Formats: sequence, C-alpha cells, structure tokens
Amino acid sequence: MADFNLGNPVFATYVVAACLMILKAVAMSWLTVVRMVGANGGFRNPEDMKKTPMNPNPHANQTAPNESVERIRRIHLNVLENVPFFLAAGLLYVTTQPDLWLAQLLFYGYVVSRLLHFIAYITAQIHEIRATFWTVGSVIILYMTGATLVKALGY
Amino acid sequence: MADFNLGNPVFATYVVAACLMILKAVAMSWLTVVRMVGANGGFRNPEDMKKTPMNPNPHANQTAPNESVERIRRIHLNVLENVPFFLAAGLLYVTTQPDLWLAQLLFYGYVVSRLLHFIAYITAQIHEIRATFWTVGSVIILYMTGATLVKALGY
Amino acid sequence: MADFNLGNPVFATYVVAACLMILKAVAMSWLTVVRMVGANGGFRNPEDMKKTPMNPNPHANQTAPNESVERIRRIHLNVLENVPFFLAAGLLYVTTQPDLWLAQLLFYGYVVSRLLHFIAYITAQIHEIRATFWTVGSVIILYMTGATLVKALGY
Repeated sequence: MADFNLGNPVFATYVVAACLMILKAVAMSWLTVVRMVGANGGFRNPEDMKKTPMNPNPHANQTAPNESVERIRRIHLNVLENVPFFLAAGLLYVTTQPDLWLAQLLFYGYVVSRLLHFIAYITAQIHEIRATFWTVGSVIILYMTGATLVKALGY
Repeated sequence: MADFNLGNPVFATYVVAACLMILKAVAMSWLTVVRMVGANGGFRNPEDMKKTPMNPNPHANQTAPNESVERIRRIHLNVLENVPFFLAAGLLYVTTQPDLWLAQLLFYGYVVSRLLHFIAYITAQIHEIRATFWTVGSVIILYMTGATLVKALGY
Repeated sequence: MADFNLGNPVFATYVVAACLMILKAVAMSWLTVVRMVGANGGFRNPEDMKKTPMNPNPHANQTAPNESVERIRRIHLNVLENVPFFLAAGLLYVTTQPDLWLAQLLFYGYVVSRLLHFIAYITAQIHEIRATFWTVGSVIILYMTGATLVKALGY
C-alpha cells in the first residue's frame, strides 16, 4: 500500500495536523483584514485610499503603519517562515514509516507549539516565552528532516 | 492504485493547476527583475550600488523604494501568503477522492481567481475588486482543507 | 509501485535534495537569532525591549534596523520566494518518471545553486554573481514545472 493514503494511520495523522496548520495560516490573512477594518487603516496600497463603498471617508493616514495590523503581519511572516517547511518535512517523514505514537507526538506537538506561539505573540508576551514555543516547533521540523534525510540516503 | 499518480484524473487536474500556480509564483520574481531594470532602481542591497557591467552609473537613489517595483513585491508577498497553502491543501484534498467535476471546479477556479487577483492588483483596481478575487481563492483553500480534515478525522 | 516511495530512486533523490533545502531554510531563522544576539538588536517587537533575563539592559535602539540582521532577513525572504516552489515542483516532477541522471542533475543542481547563492549573498558579492546563481535555480524550477505540466496535460 502507498504511504500517502488515508488508510495509513501515520499519513492520516499528518493530514490532520497539516490541515490545522493550513487553516491557521489562512486565518492570519483574515485576521489582518479584521484588524484593518477595525483600525480603518493599516492599508498598503495607494488605491486603498480611494473613495469606495467600503471606504466612504478616505484619509491619508490610512496607509500609515498601524501597530495592531503590523503585529499580525509579523506573526504572518513567522508563519510563512515555518509552516510551509513543516508541511513538506512532515509529508516526507511519512515515507520513513515511523511508529504511530512518534508521528503523533511530532505532528500534534508541532500544532500545539504553533498555537502557543501564536497566543504568546498576539498577546505580546516577553521574547523568552515566544521564543520557547517557536524553538519547540523548529526542533520538530529539524528532527523530522534529519531522520528523513538519513533514511533516504540509506536507499 | 495510488492517489498520487498521473493516471488518476483528479491528481492530473491538481498537477495542471499546481504547475500553473508555480509558474505564476516564479514569474513574480522575474517581473520584479524586469521592473528593477526598467526603473534602474528599487534595489535592496548596499552592494547593488557598486559599479558593475550591468550598473555602469550607480547612484544613491537606486536603493530608494520605487513604487512600480514595490507593487510587484506586495503582489509577490500575497502570493507567498496564499499559493503554498493551495499547493499543500490541493494535494491532500486529492486523497479524499472527490468527484472529478468538483476537483476541476475547485482547482481551476483557484487558478482563475488568482489570475484575476493579479490583474486587479497590478492595474491598481479599487480594493473591493481585488478583495473579491482574493476571497474566492481563500474560500476554496478553506473548503478543501475543511473537507480533507473531516475525511482524515473519520479514519 | 507508487512513485512516492523511498524504493523509487528518483523519489529518494528528491527527498535528499528537499531535506537539504528544508534544513537550509530553517537555518535562516536560526541565523537571524544568532545575528540578533550578536548585535544585541535588530528586534522587531515593542515587547522585545522589556527587561528580561536575556535582555538585562534594554534600550530603544534595539528595535532599529540592524544591517547584519536585515541582510539575513533579505536572504530569508529570497528563500521563501523560491524554496517552497522547488519543494512542490520537484515532488510533482517525480510523477513524470524522469531518467535518474536527469533528476539528479536537476535536484542536486538546484541545491548547489542555492548554496552558492547564499554564499554570494551573505558575503555581499556584486549583483551579477548573486543573480547568476539565483537564475540557475529559477530556471530549474521552470523546467521541471513545464515538463510536468506538459506530461499532466497529456493524460
């Protein structure tokens, strides 16, 4: 049977974790929209200051940086720096046929570490807390990638 | 037969859509180059102001932001926030074995929504138009990911 | 046999190249940390200037841009613009069942081009050198994607 099949419990575990991470990543875009609407600013394009049905009273400050929006953008960039590599590393790790308990620990551990990182970041906790959660996720990616590399080199 | 096989029409449809999206993403880098050459500026690195065969007359303004280049960079960032998650979500969605017509609607619908978003963005249409096309693509990712999550949790 | 199986030499080659690229991408985050610690600055968040065990003597300049850190961030952004699309394009290219020598040339050629690009970028070589290595990698992605698209359209 192929490794990439929902009947393979390790793959199904990966798919659950991957879907949660994709939903979270896409949610960052929507959260940016919510905060831009809330602040009526934080826009980035000159055309966003045109008078339109959704922007009846445009003013020049609307394209000035808005900290509540910028925070989401920084979180979003952190997502882009991490999640795509988890998605790739996790998928390839499935082909090494790890034990299910280990795969669950790594995949769900990653999801939890990223949720905690998000909470620490959006509530502006001190760097040490945010960095701890980020490090857990980063080490999980490094471990899976290293294990996969060793296995692939052995073929 | 494995889901991830070009003999599987749903997978072949995904591959066509994914390749078009990858080509479009890579084209953003090339478009940035074209606009930097056209503006003879919009550079980002101090070393880009050194006198070289391709930059015979360097001047300090070459690293100042150039709006024609910055627009492509904003479009490019939007690509990075969206397309990698479509690529992952679409691949995993294939394993749910959807009907071919539905897969074609979602995969090709995404491609069309992103092409229209690009045209709206590069021609500086009002936010409402750009946001509409973006929303279509984002909802397609959310739908595919949700459907895949439900299916994977059922295993 | 499924294409995505470590017993398939083309897939195993892809996995080795992909793992090396994932490790390199994650290393960019760690390099940013190393440089921020070294500069005791280049931070991005207001809360990073709070007095904490790791930042006993905070000062306002710590969130000012620091060129040694900014250079890594520019390199990192370049990684995000390129590597995720290599990871996707390479995986899909495996399903076209290319000759092993060609797959090795493209996959390992990409890895080498990105390592050379990194060295040229971090040592601030002139644009022509950096651009040459970037172009090699970008053309490899375009070739693999084009070949995959043609094959998928033929089904």
